[in-house]
Order: sequence, then C-alpha cells, then structure tokens
Amino acid sequence: MAYPGYGGGFGNFSGQMPGMQMPGTGPNMLPGGYSGYPAYSDNYSSADDAMWSYFTAVAGQDGEVDAEELQKCLTQSGISGTYSPFSLETCRIMIAMLDRDYTGKMGFNEFKELWAALNAWKQNFMTIDQDRSGTVEHHELSQAIAIMGYRLSPQTLTAIAKRYSKNGRIFFDDYVACCVKLRALTDFFRRRDHLQQGCVNLIYDDFLQGTMVI
Amino acid sequence: MAYPGYGGGFGNFSGQMPGMQMPGTGPNMLPGGYSGYPAYSDNYSSADDAMWSYFTAVAGQDGEVDAEELQKCLTQSGISGTYSPFSLETCRIMIAMLDRDYTGKMGFNEFKELWAALNAWKQNFMTIDQDRSGTVEHHELSQAIAIMGYRLSPQTLTAIAKRYSKNGRIFFDDYVACCVKLRALTDFFRRRDHLQQGCVNLIYDDFLQGTMVI
Repeated sequence: MAYPGYGGGFGNFSGQMPGMQMPGTGPNMLPGGYSGYPAYSDNYSSADDAMWSYFTAVAGQDGEVDAEELQKCLTQSGISGTYSPFSLETCRIMIAMLDRDYTGKMGFNEFKELWAALNAWKQNFMTIDQDRSGTVEHHELSQAIAIMGYRLSPQTLTAIAKRYSKNGRIFFDDYVACCVKLRALTDFFRRRDHLQQGCVNLIYDDFLQGTMVI
Repeated sequence: MAYPGYGGGFGNFSGQMPGMQMPGTGPNMLPGGYSGYPAYSDNYSSADDAMWSYFTAVAGQDGEVDAEELQKCLTQSGISGTYSPFSLETCRIMIAMLDRDYTGKMGFNEFKELWAALNAWKQNFMTIDQDRSGTVEHHELSQAIAIMGYRLSPQTLTAIAKRYSKNGRIFFDDYVACCVKLRALTDFFRRRDHLQQGCVNLIYDDFLQGTMVI
C-alpha cells in the first residue's frame, strides 16, 4: 500500500521507518505512534498514577477537562519543564486533536494519549534545542517534521515554519501547537482517504467541521 | 449557479441576499463583501490616512508587517475599542487570511482590506453584545455565522461555538478569530471548488498548506 502524500506522522522519532505504524486508520492506530519513547513505557503504572492525580485535581464532576482545565492541569504537572507553560490556544487544539465526538472536552484515556505525545514532542524539541535557548530555527522545525514521517513540499514547510515562529524563531509552545495541528489535520485527512492515495473528496461542511476546530 | 454548501460568507451583514457578491472567485471578490458598512466608506481618504499612519509606524523597511507588528499596530489604533486587544494568535491568522503568497507578512493594501473586515465584525459583535458585557453566547455566534451567509450544519455550528468559547462564552478576540478562520478556510475551499458545487478534491500537501497556516 503506497502512501505518496504522507508518512508516519504521529510523533514517531523512534527510528522505525516512516509508515511502519500505518496499517490501520482511525483512532485505534494512534497510540502505536509513540512506542519508541521511554517516557512512561518502563514505569507505566506509577506514571499513570501521577497523571491521574494531575487530571482529577482539575477535572469537573463529569470526569473530563475543557481547554482551561487542561491548561491548568498541564501547568501544574510541570510537563513543559523549563519551557513556558502551554497557552490556552495550544490547549484548545490539544483537545480538538483527540475530541472525536466534538464535545470540546477530554477524558482520562485521551489525556494519557496526549501525555505520551507531549513527552515525545518535548524529547524531540530538546534534541533540537541543544543550547537550551528555548527556541529552534526554521530549518530545524522542517527537519523535525520530515523525521516525524511527514512528506511535505518545501513550500509547505516554509509556510508552516513562518506561521509558527516569533521573530524568526520557534518556541516550545508553538512547536507543540504545530505538531498537534499536523497530527490532527493528517488524522482528519487520512480518515477520509479511503484508498490511502493522498487525495480526498470533501464537502464544505465536513471540511469546515474538521478544520475550524483544530 | 447554485451554492448548496455556503453563502456569502465574507462578513456581509448588509442585508443583501447571501450570494449576491459571489459571481467571482478568488482574491478580487473579497473587498465587495463589506459594501454595506459605513465604517470608512463615507470618509475614505481621511480614514485611509489614519490607517497609513498606524501602519507605517510599525511596518519594517520592507513596507510590510508580520504578526507581532500587526498586533502592535492594531493595539495602537484602538480598533478593539473597549474590548481586549487582539492576541498574537489572532493576528497570525489575520495575516494568513490575506497572505496569498505565503510570505507571512501583510502589505498596506491587505491591511486596508483587513481593517474593513475588522470594522464589520466589530459592528456585528456590538450588535449582538447589547449589554456590553464583552462576550456573547453560543447561539448568538451561531446566528451571526448564519446571517453572514454561511450555511453550516447544526453539528458544525455547535463544534465551532465550543471551540471559540471560554467558560461557555465567546469573547471579542475569539469571535474575530472565528470570523477570520471561517473566511480564510471558505476562501481556500472556494478557490478549489471550480464547479461551485460545495465539493472539492484535495491532495494532502495542498490541504496541509492551506489549513496549517490558518
């Protein structure tokens, strides 16, 4: 099965060939994309407990978090490390990335999925940001996107790098926002690309429903 | 020519029937969408001068503004009135809305086009926000979108309202961000909908180029 338009694309820096985790489509394939990371794979249950405590500290009675609560939760967890905490806007698109029923909220299972992705992206960012300046350059973002398995034209990579930069450099929050959007939009596209040919037919309402929330 | 999927969609609250300003497609049709507004149509040249002074005060030597400069420019102009100034994120998508050559910057002609759109959207928001609380409700945003001429399903309207709200209400900055994205994504879609049937065929790279920057 050929994937001309896009590769692995789910934060997979683990050294697998792009595409190895792609036989399935849809939600069930997502967790497999982070298998190369030790973030909590060696110590799953205690990390799970820690996440649960962060999560329940802010989740409402419905057992879910909205974007404001997610922002509070991630800030309190310290997952950003020495980088600035995530903006509300980035938290909104984090919710949208996993919000398959468009409730605008996130349950604990989705939170765990997000947590794994964030750890992977943070690891990637720290690998690039070797001088710990807190920012990376345009070409470094482009390289990171390519290594994640996305196959994009130079024009698209340039447009993306400009869009997510401030004064010519890319901060951690914007880097993650970029990764979240890439993954969410690719996921949206792939679910509609039934023949996996990198080409879809979209009606207007569906197009807007998918892209306005991300 | 039938437009099953979308109506006027360019901030047109002027009482025209949706679709009246739609014979053309592409960039040239955009300015026509604001014809019903008195914002600066009665007093064009002095308003033009004022805009020019706001613009040149922050534009670099290249005669263009990036997102940070646009934010400064709009804040100094006071266009938000009593509402909070626009966030950097909203300014980024304002740039993207009119950035047809993907430079990540905006020239004076595009700035004027943006200025007209912002005045129209502000007028709309103030019409809905009658008690000047600074926020509007979900159903009010949905109504505003419908009046602008967009024809969206209830599910899409609900998803949009949730995405752009904070604690269940929609602030001016988010309202404008929503309007900018709706217009930019509709414009992107329409330029590819050659038969104007509300349906397009997209390849992955083009889809990402259009949606990642907005």
